[in-house]
Amino acid sequence: MVTRLALEDKVLANLRPTLGEREHVCGIAKRLLDAVAKSGKAKGMVVGSIARNTWVRGDRDLDVFMLFDVSLSREQLEEEGLSLARTIALEFSKSFHEKYAEHPYINAVIDDVDVDLVPCYNVDSATKIQSAVDRTPFHTRYITDKINGLIDDVLLLKRFTKAGGIYGSDQMTEGFSGYLCELLVLYYGGFTPLLKATAEWHPHMIIDPEHHGAKEFDEPLIVIDPVDPRRNVAAAMSLDRMVEFMELAGGYLEDPAEKYFLIPPAQTITKDELTELLAKRGTWLYAITFTTPPYIEEVIVPQLKRSMTAIAEHLDRNGFAVHHAHYTMEKERCMFLMELLVRVLPNVRIHTGPPLWNRTNAEKFRKKHVVSPLPGPYINEGKYEMEVPREFTRVEDLLKSETLLQVRLGKHVRQVLANGWELQKGSECWHVDFAPFIAGFFDRCSPLVRARRK
Amino acid sequence: MVTRLALEDKVLANLRPTLGEREHVCGIAKRLLDAVAKSGKAKGMVVGSIARNTWVRGDRDLDVFMLFDVSLSREQLEEEGLSLARTIALEFSKSFHEKYAEHPYINAVIDDVDVDLVPCYNVDSATKIQSAVDRTPFHTRYITDKINGLIDDVLLLKRFTKAGGIYGSDQMTEGFSGYLCELLVLYYGGFTPLLKATAEWHPHMIIDPEHHGAKEFDEPLIVIDPVDPRRNVAAAMSLDRMVEFMELAGGYLEDPAEKYFLIPPAQTITKDELTELLAKRGTWLYAITFTTPPYIEEVIVPQLKRSMTAIAEHLDRNGFAVHHAHYTMEKERCMFLMELLVRVLPNVRIHTGPPLWNRTNAEKFRKKHVVSPLPGPYINEGKYEMEVPREFTRVEDLLKSETLLQVRLGKHVRQVLANGWELQKGSECWHVDFAPFIAGFFDRCSPLVRARRK
Repeated sequence: MVTRLALEDKVLANLRPTLGEREHVCGIAKRLLDAVAKSGKAKGMVVGSIARNTWVRGDRDLDVFMLFDVSLSREQLEEEGLSLARTIALEFSKSFHEKYAEHPYINAVIDDVDVDLVPCYNVDSATKIQSAVDRTPFHTRYITDKINGLIDDVLLLKRFTKAGGIYGSDQMTEGFSGYLCELLVLYYGGFTPLLKATAEWHPHMIIDPEHHGAKEFDEPLIVIDPVDPRRNVAAAMSLDRMVEFMELAGGYLEDPAEKYFLIPPAQTITKDELTELLAKRGTWLYAITFTTPPYIEEVIVPQLKRSMTAIAEHLDRNGFAVHHAHYTMEKERCMFLMELLVRVLPNVRIHTGPPLWNRTNAEKFRKKHVVSPLPGPYINEGKYEMEVPREFTRVEDLLKSETLLQVRLGKHVRQVLANGWELQKGSECWHVDFAPFIAGFFDRCSPLVRARRK
Repeated sequence: MVTRLALEDKVLANLRPTLGEREHVCGIAKRLLDAVAKSGKAKGMVVGSIARNTWVRGDRDLDVFMLFDVSLSREQLEEEGLSLARTIALEFSKSFHEKYAEHPYINAVIDDVDVDLVPCYNVDSATKIQSAVDRTPFHTRYITDKINGLIDDVLLLKRFTKAGGIYGSDQMTEGFSGYLCELLVLYYGGFTPLLKATAEWHPHMIIDPEHHGAKEFDEPLIVIDPVDPRRNVAAAMSLDRMVEFMELAGGYLEDPAEKYFLIPPAQTITKDELTELLAKRGTWLYAITFTTPPYIEEVIVPQLKRSMTAIAEHLDRNGFAVHHAHYTMEKERCMFLMELLVRVLPNVRIHTGPPLWNRTNAEKFRKKHVVSPLPGPYINEGKYEMEVPREFTRVEDLLKSETLLQVRLGKHVRQVLANGWELQKGSECWHVDFAPFIAGFFDRCSPLVRARRK
């Protein structure tokens, strides 16, 4: 036990922001708040981990919200908000630009700090918010009020999840947000109690700190937002990220080692390594690549996920069993990567029809197929069957075919694919932009989840 | 309609036994009955289709039962029964030998007639029978009493099912017995009403001519024996034979054609034809052959059926999808024949473990696999997974391996396979003894069921 606490002390010594860093960042924050106050147009508020004192050394993300009166229309808010943000950015920064979430906001670099200047409504209850950004001040007030005494625990949890590859509520990671880390530490009363509690975690469990007993959610982990019962704070978390956290927690408690807090080096693979790996595995690798649709990750990545599932099902239905499939969205191009066990199939396929006692459908099936020059329909297990030519005997032909556009793709993915895609095979799937993704594809899990077991 | 009746008249003209034939066969029957009577030991009775007048021209199967008093012990019955049968056979035949069903009996050729001389008990109710043969006299009495006026319908149905490849209640055919044909004609009131009724047939339907409302059966077609409520007369019928009958009936009513009454020529295939067929199909054919176990078809064929299912599942579990598999029992050797779509697979396989929230089993799985030099276990869809080497990368290796003996084989099949088996591949599977079976394997159904549709 001493060992574990000593280790955590050592880790914390590198996680807590230095006094100089704190002074520097808070100084910038104060100057920005003063500027908002001076404008007289809105109330300034620092939110996020810097406001809550739960930021990790080296983090340079400062969120300054500008709370406007609710009497403004949405257009007015956007117009006046952006205008004020731009004025302030001009005053402090040489480099800033407009960004979009639900609303437009300004992102500016001030010294070495990445600052978001975000206009929002100053509502008096989180249940009256008009967009998600309005909720953020409430999160900050809730956490700031309660987190005292548990800040080190939050820092440990943030680093623990980051090192485990499960920190981030973006669509590619599907893991832990900072706010979720804070809530879990609060709920369980610390880092260690949380890790221990995961031994009893199970899918669809509900954590409800303020006993809202609110509406039903169907996500793997449900953490009811203390400030808004309608929201699951862990909505972005996938089942695998949740279970990987349980796995990491169990491993760390069993054998407390520094590796659980070390950010692993980025994975990558060279083309030669990929060639060698494929030769050893004897599998068939295919990549579909296409121009990244011009929308943000939050829009495109869920479409990629759904499309990948649909394409894998399409392959399976055609007799090509998918060993492993995954997707990625890079800046320029997206990729569907598929590893298969079989590349070529014979030219016969069984087409199963309805059972004969299902008269109407059986008769339809018979009338459709009786005109075929092939023998049949014959009967197997009470159903009509036809042996028909296989539509695709080579997986390449399927992956090049227009039938891909008929599966359940996401809207923007379909739009881009309608203009064509590239199909690569074997080690030709390799491209420098995709090398980290391909390395992770064959790794199947974050290095630490694997490390836990070895 | 006139066409159909005219066709049936024409068919019947060739089905009804000739007067000369009738006189000849009945003459032999009468002499045998006289001989039984003269012995004073048992009561003679002609049973089967000759007794019921439902035999088809050219049939030469005469069943003469010798009904002994129930006071005899089983041993006495067998001894005295066989002794009497042998005495009678000696008197009339130059060629006879002992055979076994539940009891021993004598099979003799008398002139051109194949005669069974069968000892049984003379019980006074079919529910008091001591073995299945004791029931036969009751069947004959039941049918003989009622069948008058419907004999032509029985002849038509027998020929219709025989031409369709579904006549015979043996384990290979799994089709219609003569008694079942008679009962169905009686129940529906004729050949045509029966065919029409099949439009409403469905699996697990119950036909209960004497309203016994007896015990539950789970066979596809249930026909309660009028003389014994505990027995399903259609117990041997498979779902496919039942449905093929529905198919043939529908086809004949739609387009009454003579082909429905013509026995198709025996199917066969030459080795060259098989070679050509396989080249065209591009599939992988394998045959396991072994010495036929020294037991009757009724014992071995069900074991072959179960074993074939188990072997196909074993192949599927190992990643080799079975396109089609079937079995046969010939005099000298038996065969499992399998057509596959894939012959070789890569050396990787995914081994799925329990979900992590199933603590006990998950821990067992982890402890077992964590010692492996391979990476993992990793997590997929909440479960542990390992990528492990594939046990069999070539289907030949699996089909040669001892693992075949670990699947659910029939007892006698396992005993023979334990001494080894032969594995043939491609056109080498061909052997003259198996040529008809192989032809049927690729035909997938009786020629007439196919003919119905073309």
